[in-house]
Amino acid sequence: MAREITVLGSTGSMGRQTLEVVAAHPGRFKVAALAAARNVELMTAQAKRFHPRLAVLLDPAGAQELASRLRGTGVRVLTGDEGVLAAATLEGVELVVAAMVGIRSLPAVLAALESGKDIAIANKELLVAAGDVIMGRAHTLKRRVLPVDSEHSAIFQCLNRGGPVEEVIITASGGPFRDKTLEEMAAVTPEEALQHPTWVMGPKVTVDSATLMNKGLEVIEAKHLFNLDYDRITVLIHPQSVVHALVRYGDGSLFAHLGPADMRLPIQYALTWPERWELNVRKLDLADLGHLDFSHPDVKRFPCLELAYHAGRAGGTCPAVLSAADEVAVEFFLAGKIPLTAISQVVARVLEEHRPAAADDLEAILAAYSWARRRAEVVAEGFCKGSPHKG
Amino acid sequence: MAREITVLGSTGSMGRQTLEVVAAHPGRFKVAALAAARNVELMTAQAKRFHPRLAVLLDPAGAQELASRLRGTGVRVLTGDEGVLAAATLEGVELVVAAMVGIRSLPAVLAALESGKDIAIANKELLVAAGDVIMGRAHTLKRRVLPVDSEHSAIFQCLNRGGPVEEVIITASGGPFRDKTLEEMAAVTPEEALQHPTWVMGPKVTVDSATLMNKGLEVIEAKHLFNLDYDRITVLIHPQSVVHALVRYGDGSLFAHLGPADMRLPIQYALTWPERWELNVRKLDLADLGHLDFSHPDVKRFPCLELAYHAGRAGGTCPAVLSAADEVAVEFFLAGKIPLTAISQVVARVLEEHRPAAADDLEAILAAYSWARRRAEVVAEGFCKGSPHKG
Repeated sequence: MAREITVLGSTGSMGRQTLEVVAAHPGRFKVAALAAARNVELMTAQAKRFHPRLAVLLDPAGAQELASRLRGTGVRVLTGDEGVLAAATLEGVELVVAAMVGIRSLPAVLAALESGKDIAIANKELLVAAGDVIMGRAHTLKRRVLPVDSEHSAIFQCLNRGGPVEEVIITASGGPFRDKTLEEMAAVTPEEALQHPTWVMGPKVTVDSATLMNKGLEVIEAKHLFNLDYDRITVLIHPQSVVHALVRYGDGSLFAHLGPADMRLPIQYALTWPERWELNVRKLDLADLGHLDFSHPDVKRFPCLELAYHAGRAGGTCPAVLSAADEVAVEFFLAGKIPLTAISQVVARVLEEHRPAAADDLEAILAAYSWARRRAEVVAEGFCKGSPHKG
Repeated sequence: MAREITVLGSTGSMGRQTLEVVAAHPGRFKVAALAAARNVELMTAQAKRFHPRLAVLLDPAGAQELASRLRGTGVRVLTGDEGVLAAATLEGVELVVAAMVGIRSLPAVLAALESGKDIAIANKELLVAAGDVIMGRAHTLKRRVLPVDSEHSAIFQCLNRGGPVEEVIITASGGPFRDKTLEEMAAVTPEEALQHPTWVMGPKVTVDSATLMNKGLEVIEAKHLFNLDYDRITVLIHPQSVVHALVRYGDGSLFAHLGPADMRLPIQYALTWPERWELNVRKLDLADLGHLDFSHPDVKRFPCLELAYHAGRAGGTCPAVLSAADEVAVEFFLAGKIPLTAISQVVARVLEEHRPAAADDLEAILAAYSWARRRAEVVAEGFCKGSPHKG
């Protein structure tokens, strides 16, 4: 019988690849609902192809246009956060893929858990900002939160090999500026930062990869997904992006998950778990690669990684603030307003100013998030090119 | 409750390391019986330390001496193949570690299975020569044959990750002559061949590592242990000996088992499976290593690997003949009589001359084995330095 799934964020990079995986297994999945922010063109095409019961665009004008384009197809169209909520809680759905950017879908994801669905989490901001809440609800409700990020999927696949986990090692390509000096990094353009050496991803994630903030967010995500102490999570630079993660056990054994840099693999595993289905990917040939390199990250040149550990250890609303401030700082960088190296400075400043609170309910998290975004905008303005406050 | 084990081949490299693992976990194992070929000194010390119910030396004179040294300790002493058989079938024992050199312990290992014991197989010759018989008996009797070789332990630990196995990759350090030309290899001395770059092992295995015959035997061993087609078993050269094996699944995922080059790790896993106990080993640090190298083996310079695939695919008594001929050729090399490069030639010649038979009973296997040893001696004589028949 086909497995019914809902995709929140279907028009983004992860959402599109999720639907590719669905399309690769005709008859084995049924797309129940699709939701996205505002891409009418793509949502129309997706709805016509996958025939969901429900299609949602956050943007009301977009939703209206979508409804008119889908007239006669039998696809119901909704809009706004209520629409996303309806998509997340649709009856008969087993798994909700949470791939919407930012934390706006957080209430919908919690509602999906409440209504008995498992979550495939493709958006690290959700776990960074609200890891305790999400994992706590999932635990109480006995629902699964399945990783979609390649590193976390790799860890997940290397678990349960007997005995307690000693250490989890997340690899990082090191981004395009792995070998650049701080001075060179200060001069890179958004265009240069968007050239990721190994993975094809959205612009925010790509910039976060260049600063290693992405890896920092992944550390926090791993902490929540696998209930680990920060002391047990290590990051290693591994430019080939072939070993996605390793897990060390008490007898000295390390298990590694390797694969081509193809997001369809971890996405499919989240959709098919506990089964593993065939997938037509490029076969990884280690002899062709010749060698795999590993090194410790340079925390001086990549301060975002330390900031993330710091925020994660501080806990409460700090990770939400880290994530929100980074969002804003990356927007400023992509708009050409601040240098790449200012991102960590903006985030550090906002974190310093933040008075941490407990992050055990949605309101506290959302309040900290929007406070941090507002503060980050002010701080980032100070770093703008030509600004007298430039730090 | 302590787990009762018997060690066949307790005075060899694998046997000694097995007892080290036992000693590292006081009260958790009970050594029921020890057996070895002829090392009276070490067997006396082991018996005094581990207080087995039974100690066996194949050599009758040695056994007599042992008995006199162990008088009053309560350790019963036996000799010969009957002694080994008694050790292998001792009541109350759960697991027999089969670590005796050669195939002389084959009847004892089969008897251990018949008497309800699991086998930890630390001697690849047994599975190479009699894989069908051993695995067939284990299957019928629902007993386990647990790998002890680091590569096979690594494969074993990477199994059951969902879906069928597409490929198993066994790594090889490539031995000390990885980068030597054929001419240079023809001139190496036994002393040079005994310097293995990464593992500490007995002389036979060390020479087999230098010719890659060891890897060939491991391919055959893997075929039997995991019921794989030869087309699904690949060998990769990996000089650092840190990745012991990889297993590829249908979605492109590769799982690797990594660890320090320390035999206590796979030995302990075989003893504690399905549990994984703590072990105090050197912690593997990939960043310290810096890089892991991989390449395809050069079959021209290392013909033994192809010979093993060939014998394995031919099946029947061919693998037993391969193993026996190699045993003799390595003896000749270690005695300084033939060059390293003649080992493959001796084995190839004996295999060519062999008329394969079914290997479904002990007699056929033992007959082929002793025929191959006799033939190999004659053929090897022809390769001896100064021989007019030198090939």
